[in-house]
Amino acid sequence: MLVIGELINCTRRRVGAATAARDAAVIQEVAQRQVAAGAHLLDVNGGLPGQEAEALRWLVDVVQEATDLPLCLDSSDPVALAAALPLCRKPPLINSIELARFSSVVALVKEYGTGVVALAMGPHGPPSGIDDRVEYAARVVDRLTAEGVPLENIHLDPCVMPVSTGGDNGIGVAECITRIMVRYPGLHTVVGLSNVSFGLPARKLLNQCFLTVLMSRGLDSVIVDPTDRQLMAALYAAEALLGRDEYCVGYMKAFRKGLLEPAAPSARPGPAPSPLAARDSAAVPS
Amino acid sequence: MLVIGELINCTRRRVGAATAARDAAVIQEVAQRQVAAGAHLLDVNGGLPGQEAEALRWLVDVVQEATDLPLCLDSSDPVALAAALPLCRKPPLINSIELARFSSVVALVKEYGTGVVALAMGPHGPPSGIDDRVEYAARVVDRLTAEGVPLENIHLDPCVMPVSTGGDNGIGVAECITRIMVRYPGLHTVVGLSNVSFGLPARKLLNQCFLTVLMSRGLDSVIVDPTDRQLMAALYAAEALLGRDEYCVGYMKAFRKGLLEPAAPSARPGPAPSPLAARDSAAVPS
Repeated sequence: MLVIGELINCTRRRVGAATAARDAAVIQEVAQRQVAAGAHLLDVNGGLPGQEAEALRWLVDVVQEATDLPLCLDSSDPVALAAALPLCRKPPLINSIELARFSSVVALVKEYGTGVVALAMGPHGPPSGIDDRVEYAARVVDRLTAEGVPLENIHLDPCVMPVSTGGDNGIGVAECITRIMVRYPGLHTVVGLSNVSFGLPARKLLNQCFLTVLMSRGLDSVIVDPTDRQLMAALYAAEALLGRDEYCVGYMKAFRKGLLEPAAPSARPGPAPSPLAARDSAAVPS
Repeated sequence: MLVIGELINCTRRRVGAATAARDAAVIQEVAQRQVAAGAHLLDVNGGLPGQEAEALRWLVDVVQEATDLPLCLDSSDPVALAAALPLCRKPPLINSIELARFSSVVALVKEYGTGVVALAMGPHGPPSGIDDRVEYAARVVDRLTAEGVPLENIHLDPCVMPVSTGGDNGIGVAECITRIMVRYPGLHTVVGLSNVSFGLPARKLLNQCFLTVLMSRGLDSVIVDPTDRQLMAALYAAEALLGRDEYCVGYMKAFRKGLLEPAAPSARPGPAPSPLAARDSAAVPS
């Protein structure tokens, strides 16, 4: 399971302020905290109004000083992507492409041989049912493969919407993942998980359960806050339950590191949320 | 989602001792605790060596004095079942039938018009892979329907085995539920959940995640400890995520009752585990 850490995002207050002030120490602390928590890639979103390209370039440099994890360039702006791509030391994931803004982004995907998050977005916005979700997904995947992008480089994002606004939003994403992964063997799927629980209480519980549901449908990458211990514990448990963790080795390792229990106020091995995390947990669009 | 409370089971130390001593108060407290926690049926297992029929009869009477929930008669012994069935005030579920002991139990299912838990058990024991699990499941379902038992009265149990003893044990059950529910529309599925985590640490986490996985495959009844708040919270969350809880009404109700957060040591609305629960939590076969 590929864990893409979502915390370096300029729409989050603290990260946005640190980026505007070019305060590298704050950004690097957030990067290192996600690495310690088990992230495999770090999403980097430089979405400051009017200065995205410069912000993204700065973030890419600063984050790469702190970690050698590959990055996930979180922008739909080809100008910002083109500015940041040459700085990446490892092939990044581009997050994201959709049919409405296809040509300029796919050119970059091909030029740099990157992976790409492909949104199942329709011509008039996100899908509302199961069938249109699958149809939009197939359209963007077909378009990418027609351009020569291999399925292995595509991470289809079925567009998670809040279940509070539509009862089928959760099961629709689950069904879409099942159908699309059967239809395109080798394709990856990815979600920005936390949207599902928007507007409801006990969001961590919903996010945790939704991750488990989607992993059981074949989801193999996820954009999350890896310092959310409850979520990561569910991820280790699901890997063990779904036969993706031979002899439960990863599960037992996580247990011995103390990662399967909620963080206690007392000292405990493994990454603990920073005191700043609480006030820094505004909604994170993904 | 049908919740079958598993706590009245004579293989559990405290329940076994109370049954042997005919201590009704203990049994009735366990019954009421499960009712308060949201159980829809109560499993009753009178498996005291050499005296199962008498123990089961006594338990059925005692439990029905404390609650009007229907019962799930947990025995594979036709003698014990025949003794207890006439005492049931509501049609119970018989738990369980399997091909190896079919005829005498199916006669009781038909005579009393009960529901029945049907085990996907093979001629030489539980299934080991996905295909044999589905095959054993189909065999027992076909045999029951050939006897005129309607699919709606059958709860197929795919036989949960520990993932610690076989990497495919979790995903095998999930796949079996998917396939068997597609093949037999109207059929119910049920599991004894906690077997999956046997031999591993952080069992509640695994049980919670496994319940979520199986619900996403269509599982519609479960034999569990309903006083396990973590598990029940996952159940409410999964119902909301899977489009089985219109407008998230059940989820919000559970939230307002304080059922979605772990029990705190301080007073909190909703059922709290009894102080006896901890030392009473020996392995519960189901």
